[in-house]
Amino acid sequence: MNTFDLTEHPHRRFNALTGEWLLVSPHRSKRPWQGQQEEIPKEERPQYDPKCYLCPGNVRANGEYNPPYTQTFVFDNDFGALQADVPAGNFQKGNLLKAEAERGICRVICFSPRHDLTLTDMEVAEIKKVVDVWQQQYEELGALDFINYVQIFENKGAVMGSSNPHPHGQIWAQSAVPVEPAKETAQQQAYFQEHGRSLLTDYLALELEENKRIVLETTAFVALVPFWAVWPFETIIIPKRHFGDILQMTEAEKADFAQIIKELSTVYDKLFGVAFPYSAGMHQCPTDGQDHPEWHFHMHFYPPLLRSATVKKFMVGYEMLGNPQRDITPESAAERLRSLL
Amino acid sequence: MNTFDLTEHPHRRFNALTGEWLLVSPHRSKRPWQGQQEEIPKEERPQYDPKCYLCPGNVRANGEYNPPYTQTFVFDNDFGALQADVPAGNFQKGNLLKAEAERGICRVICFSPRHDLTLTDMEVAEIKKVVDVWQQQYEELGALDFINYVQIFENKGAVMGSSNPHPHGQIWAQSAVPVEPAKETAQQQAYFQEHGRSLLTDYLALELEENKRIVLETTAFVALVPFWAVWPFETIIIPKRHFGDILQMTEAEKADFAQIIKELSTVYDKLFGVAFPYSAGMHQCPTDGQDHPEWHFHMHFYPPLLRSATVKKFMVGYEMLGNPQRDITPESAAERLRSLL
Ligand SMILES: O=P(O)(O)O[C@H]1O[C@H](CO)[C@@H](O)[C@H](O)[C@H]1O
Ligand SMILES: O=P(O)(O)O[C@H]1O[C@H](CO)[C@@H](O)[C@H](O)[C@H]1O
Repeated sequence: MNTFDLTEHPHRRFNALTGEWLLVSPHRSKRPWQGQQEEIPKEERPQYDPKCYLCPGNVRANGEYNPPYTQTFVFDNDFGALQADVPAGNFQKGNLLKAEAERGICRVICFSPRHDLTLTDMEVAEIKKVVDVWQQQYEELGALDFINYVQIFENKGAVMGSSNPHPHGQIWAQSAVPVEPAKETAQQQAYFQEHGRSLLTDYLALELEENKRIVLETTAFVALVPFWAVWPFETIIIPKRHFGDILQMTEAEKADFAQIIKELSTVYDKLFGVAFPYSAGMHQCPTDGQDHPEWHFHMHFYPPLLRSATVKKFMVGYEMLGNPQRDITPESAAERLRSLL
Repeated sequence: MNTFDLTEHPHRRFNALTGEWLLVSPHRSKRPWQGQQEEIPKEERPQYDPKCYLCPGNVRANGEYNPPYTQTFVFDNDFGALQADVPAGNFQKGNLLKAEAERGICRVICFSPRHDLTLTDMEVAEIKKVVDVWQQQYEELGALDFINYVQIFENKGAVMGSSNPHPHGQIWAQSAVPVEPAKETAQQQAYFQEHGRSLLTDYLALELEENKRIVLETTAFVALVPFWAVWPFETIIIPKRHFGDILQMTEAEKADFAQIIKELSTVYDKLFGVAFPYSAGMHQCPTDGQDHPEWHFHMHFYPPLLRSATVKKFMVGYEMLGNPQRDITPESAAERLRSLL
């Protein structure tokens, strides 16, 4: 009764990958909602939309034409946040105003020519081809001298800020290692130095032993709700074998990775009966030419929906000014996802 | 031509308050948008709504009745994310799974009995009374033994996750110092130790000297777009005098604080011709019983709108997995806000 219980009492949890804390409020899921309702995405998307910038053969916003592509298609983002030809330089006043030029390359990956097929709707063999493209891109971009980090990700659904409904992912590759992977590098390095094993190797072993947050497992990967998840149904895909980046994946592992992405996103779509919005992306070894024996490849899924297809979790006032907060426990989220398998 | 230019080239900026970096992409504001359109808030809000949980005399979600209040009204959140009576305890497996019980108190502040009046719509004298309440609350909660940090904030607008349209703010007070103020404490401490002045004293002097990001000024406060702003029209209100928390504010400063909040939010409302949504909140001295000569009180405004009343900035894939990114420079944002004075 009077003892601390993770399933019942407000508590903080530590994110071992970033070194930061979050607030968990298990009791809070019943609060009333008179706030914003999200739109349910239209189910009826055409296979081809003549007005879409990303469909094969169409004209893009910058006047160029897409080729009549028939498979996964990659091109340089016409409005990339990063550019390759920025002159070096910086700006500094004391330690208070500091800026540095940043070089990089932004690309768009149309998963398939079909305007209506999300990753979930594609066959595993087709998703495998997307994984091949991710691997090629990481290799090609990472090999460039001025690229020290390659961030591959997808914003799925209008609610996640996708600026175009044609299913696509993105790559932002740049000179600096961004803040989040830099935190993960520091945490993984410290762990590796102390234990001689990767942080995620030991974490995955603990998770498999506890068996409270596992969603599903394939031969080579495990999908689970991390102990420190901040989004209601956040998950992470971790390879059982310790490797630092997608270049290390064997053909069999790539097929298996495609498989677990398909299975996990199918579960997501079942949860509220809609194409489940999320931002997802891989974290992997910086391409900075250094040895990173500590890095353990993984993929994060950050989906915003909380209670239904129309009510999402808002990371706002307290979360922006204090720290992330969640209303249901990671354990109960995992249980719900598992029940849909 | 070929030299690095903050107004033109992608670059990273350093946030001196948190010690983290963000990506700035000045050239990117012209990218096409086929994504989500936000709803424009209804202008016609009744003065009293019989179905609102927060209007005077109405029944709340937990069955209690609000008093027929006529001024700013504070009550304990019926569905608070924090609770005062949590048993102490923690959970730990290695260094990888770590959780700790967390005690706290969540309160709601109805700014006024009127369902239709935002802070912007209230008279300065009425806003001053809200400031008085903030001061009383910070004092009362901060004096409690188990409260080491008092976060006062407001989520304004449905797009910022406000769960009820009746204008209100919140207080989350708790045992732990949350992640963001903890970062600011570390940065301010290091600066104070080195220079013997508060970080924001020197920062404000630089800003007044550069005069590129100032939005407006009153006798005691300055509102500006910080050099490291991540949200398109993010601002910070900094007192000219160095003090750590709202308890130090004189009567005159409190009136002046009310004044600058009124003026700043009026400018915001003019920008896109709508009640401008934001999350805003004060950062101030932890109430942990320690000396904090480094702490310099301030208030952050994080508004999401980017291009119009219906297109906001999404902090999604790259931002969640990498770091925050913005499309217009803080300097141009300040200029636009200033032009509306
Ligand atoms: O407290 P409310 O208004 O119910 O809820 C709102 O503010 C909270 C504090 O920022 C957030 O945790 C919620 O996600 C948001 O919807
Ligand atoms: O690149 P897009 O699809 O135009 O834009 C989307 O993803 C970007 C990367 O996460 C974000 O910076 C934008 O705010 C978002 O709308």
